[in-house]
Amino acid sequence: MPTIIKRSLKDNLSRANGFDDKSTVCANFERTDNENEKISFEKYLQLVKNPTTGGITTNIPDHWGSCVVRGIFTILLLAYFWYTIYMGPFAIMLTTLAIQVKCFAEIIDIVHKSYPINELPLFRLTSWYFLVAANYFCYGETLADYFNVFIGKIYVLRLLVNYHRFVSFCMYFVGIMWFVLSLRSKYDMHQFSLLAYTHIALLLIVVQSYMIVKNIFQGLIWLAVPVTLVVCNDITAYIFGKTFGKTPLIRVSPKKTWEGFIGAAVSTVIYGIVASYIMCHYSYFTCPVEYVEEMGKIEMNNNCETTSTFELKNYTISLNILELFYATASFLIYPFIFHSIVLSVFSSVIAPFGGFFASGFKRAFKIKDFGETIPGHGGILDRFDCQFFMATFVNVYITSFIKNATPEKIFNKVLYLEPDQQLQFFNMLKESLKDKL
Amino acid sequence: MPTIIKRSLKDNLSRANGFDDKSTVCANFERTDNENEKISFEKYLQLVKNPTTGGITTNIPDHWGSCVVRGIFTILLLAYFWYTIYMGPFAIMLTTLAIQVKCFAEIIDIVHKSYPINELPLFRLTSWYFLVAANYFCYGETLADYFNVFIGKIYVLRLLVNYHRFVSFCMYFVGIMWFVLSLRSKYDMHQFSLLAYTHIALLLIVVQSYMIVKNIFQGLIWLAVPVTLVVCNDITAYIFGKTFGKTPLIRVSPKKTWEGFIGAAVSTVIYGIVASYIMCHYSYFTCPVEYVEEMGKIEMNNNCETTSTFELKNYTISLNILELFYATASFLIYPFIFHSIVLSVFSSVIAPFGGFFASGFKRAFKIKDFGETIPGHGGILDRFDCQFFMATFVNVYITSFIKNATPEKIFNKVLYLEPDQQLQFFNMLKESLKDKL
Repeated sequence: MPTIIKRSLKDNLSRANGFDDKSTVCANFERTDNENEKISFEKYLQLVKNPTTGGITTNIPDHWGSCVVRGIFTILLLAYFWYTIYMGPFAIMLTTLAIQVKCFAEIIDIVHKSYPINELPLFRLTSWYFLVAANYFCYGETLADYFNVFIGKIYVLRLLVNYHRFVSFCMYFVGIMWFVLSLRSKYDMHQFSLLAYTHIALLLIVVQSYMIVKNIFQGLIWLAVPVTLVVCNDITAYIFGKTFGKTPLIRVSPKKTWEGFIGAAVSTVIYGIVASYIMCHYSYFTCPVEYVEEMGKIEMNNNCETTSTFELKNYTISLNILELFYATASFLIYPFIFHSIVLSVFSSVIAPFGGFFASGFKRAFKIKDFGETIPGHGGILDRFDCQFFMATFVNVYITSFIKNATPEKIFNKVLYLEPDQQLQFFNMLKESLKDKL
Repeated sequence: MPTIIKRSLKDNLSRANGFDDKSTVCANFERTDNENEKISFEKYLQLVKNPTTGGITTNIPDHWGSCVVRGIFTILLLAYFWYTIYMGPFAIMLTTLAIQVKCFAEIIDIVHKSYPINELPLFRLTSWYFLVAANYFCYGETLADYFNVFIGKIYVLRLLVNYHRFVSFCMYFVGIMWFVLSLRSKYDMHQFSLLAYTHIALLLIVVQSYMIVKNIFQGLIWLAVPVTLVVCNDITAYIFGKTFGKTPLIRVSPKKTWEGFIGAAVSTVIYGIVASYIMCHYSYFTCPVEYVEEMGKIEMNNNCETTSTFELKNYTISLNILELFYATASFLIYPFIFHSIVLSVFSSVIAPFGGFFASGFKRAFKIKDFGETIPGHGGILDRFDCQFFMATFVNVYITSFIKNATPEKIFNKVLYLEPDQQLQFFNMLKESLKDKL
């Protein structure tokens, strides 16, 4: 229940000194221990569960065990990530869906605990119902374009695609009707809060995770580079922060330091350039994902024509200082490298706000982690908080600056027109092309 | 603050007997008066302000003054509605925008009162900032198609349209950053709740009101018929309910009766058929709205070719009972009449859930009306709660079943392609058309 808890100055201070990652709790524990305050194991458990009482953590040695666990699971997660990339687009889509569902579950779980509705056990299902409806809406909107051939064969699928918006609206409205009918005056405020948080979770998790799926259709590089940029930024920020960290960066995440921030930003840009350079060599990463009818599944079109973004291009820079010193230099660079620099800067400067947002949420709901799924890291959402905003940014970036509209997609729209309109369209295009010749 | 208030059985009962419209309060007042309970004017005011203590209202004469005020303002509202229709699409868009902003203000106001954040006066602005961002996102998405010529002339507008998604994302993300930076541990739970309610308001009010604007581009009939259907349903439900109402319909809105519901549904279908029949005669209602370059403004294209939806069509029904009785009948009907019947049924059976949803919200936040803007009716949102869902339904209905895709809109997309892709597209279309001949 959202009540303002009156906190003493000390409480506020300790709160302001945060609990941003696993090591904090261990560090808290050690610090108090060092100060010869006797703490029982019960109190330690309490500390882990209720870390608002945590203390200042800078300059305190890490709990090595925790660090090792954290490190091992970082490697395991990265290995799994590359394995799904290797397995292809379908595996990536399934993994994304699984992560999305788990993240949604974590948020809804926390909110349901804060706004308990004990007498209406079925009410919890409304959130899940909205999750299904939102997924149908998101995935139906564009996936249909890519599975055209496959969908044409199955009648029910064709109906679900042709009337996609209508079915989505009906599903959503049925959810609203269900919600209205299950309103009970004893819990109505809680029920509305749950509905509001469900909506924000749908927007920030379902819609954003769906962007990941949209991005891979432009080529796996649009997944592999951004995801690893965020990972690289997280890891290097941690290392630089631990080694040189002194100056605190932001109130919401008190463990973050300027030293970690700058070190990570520089490392991330360098990593981005190197990784992009390597990946631009492989058509597996640069070719768009398509539905291959013969194989009956979506697959990389490895024989695609390379678009200009992934072709070496000559850039010439000329320098002219007061007509005294003159120099020109030429570089052969993949244009994608420039895009990757933009993505690096976003991932190290702007995307962390996704993490700060998650930290704020955890603090508001008085929890330490979103879950306990990944040992050493917390819940799935603790690991993926920045990835979601990154995915949306990449998607918006592609649609705004790469503009990879394919003739095939527009062609499908023309086929929906009436025959005489198709003819009218044909003549319009003919005239326009004549003018250009 | 959302606290569960323990209510006595009596309280719950009186709550269950509702406070659904203005007349309730007056009726409550009279009832108590009749029972010779002395109530001071202060208590009356308290009743008006806190109607949760209201009593059973059926079979109690209306407070005539209130009814007259309500009636007069119903007529004024309808007159203003037809006046904006007469003034044309631009006036409609401005009115829709004004209504949308006022409804958003009413919701945000109520939520801010329930989750007060006194020490951060600027925080309230974040909700308004998100409103601006959402409007830019919604209106930019399609209005651009219709104002192509106008936009081409102004450089800044061209930038805002070409990079529309990118600018929208940046605006939204700046809002999230602002939110994160203004988080204070004392208020964080309140701040997150405000953010969540802002999101639900954006979805249910901004996005849905934008559907109204999208609909008018298909012809003003798609605005005039649905809006008046809801109005007709509201008024006839009130009249039938008052006259014959006995059997309660739904717990959330205890003043609604089955008699009112059925009477209204029948009246609404009849009204829908008559209104559609009349409007189908006027190209002012059936022609799509377009941007007229010579006039420099959006206007009805009154000389448009009528689409099949608005052209009289012959329908034949044959009846054959056991080969003994045989009859055929032919009707000349506008196909739009069938659409209007679907809309009537939606407006009288499903759309009221929008109103129930609003009632539930008011009850949860312990308010009687969303505001005091329209005397006799309450706030703007009290009058428009069902209209928003109706607008979305109409929009989804049009895109799913009317499919009025114009060659012009798709043509713009083709012009975005690279020249060689345009040629490829041209050849694809040529082949496809050849096959059909």
